[in-house]
Amino acid sequence: MSFREILKNLVENVDGGQGAVIMGYDGIPIDEYIKDDVPLDVQLLSVEYATLLKEIKRTIDVLKTGDMEEISITTGLSRIVVRAVNQEFFIVLVLDKEGNFGKGRYLLKRDTPKVGEELQ
Amino acid sequence: MSFREILKNLVENVDGGQGAVIMGYDGIPIDEYIKDDVPLDVQLLSVEYATLLKEIKRTIDVLKTGDMEEISITTGLSRIVVRAVNQEFFIVLVLDKEGNFGKGRYLLKRDTPKVGEELQ
Repeated sequence: MSFREILKNLVENVDGGQGAVIMGYDGIPIDEYIKDDVPLDVQLLSVEYATLLKEIKRTIDVLKTGDMEEISITTGLSRIVVRAVNQEFFIVLVLDKEGNFGKGRYLLKRDTPKVGEELQ
Repeated sequence: MSFREILKNLVENVDGGQGAVIMGYDGIPIDEYIKDDVPLDVQLLSVEYATLLKEIKRTIDVLKTGDMEEISITTGLSRIVVRAVNQEFFIVLVLDKEGNFGKGRYLLKRDTPKVGEELQ
């Protein structure tokens, strides 16, 4: 299954799914799937999240609580779940505020190893 | 109810609860409750999370997705849930890796307004 297909499957199978991006900590997206009617600026999202994830990794390292696995960020308008693929890449799943957070987390956890295998 | 009592109630009522801290974005903790047998360095945690939360706030502002509400960070050894009280303060709840994430989120969401009222 291609990266795009994995991402599409993820987004389309979660209520409120808007888009998903596989990206590196260097801020460069590898692949993405965004629903047609969603105004997501993937370039901006990638750059901003890469910066943020590096900061989160640094904090986790300082606090010595093991490797980063999953981050979720809920704001007034959206809900984002991020999962580390390996030391270089991560997947960002964007849901709307009323999206099914639990199912999003579950599918992301299930599908992340598939992306990891393809990236080797 | 005092801050300490609210935090104790939170930590003791979640399976795997280790501690909770009310702190400002300036890195100064207001109050904390840490279980006796947990080696949590509250000072270090506060400083690191304040830096991180400021970075998360900045990212959310750039992406224009509304106010920050809740952050969760899962690592190899722990699970942390953070909830904004207002523009100045937030609460950090620390669970062990097998802790009850759902109940932790629920209680934190329920009790954060109580802390907000006391802080006014």
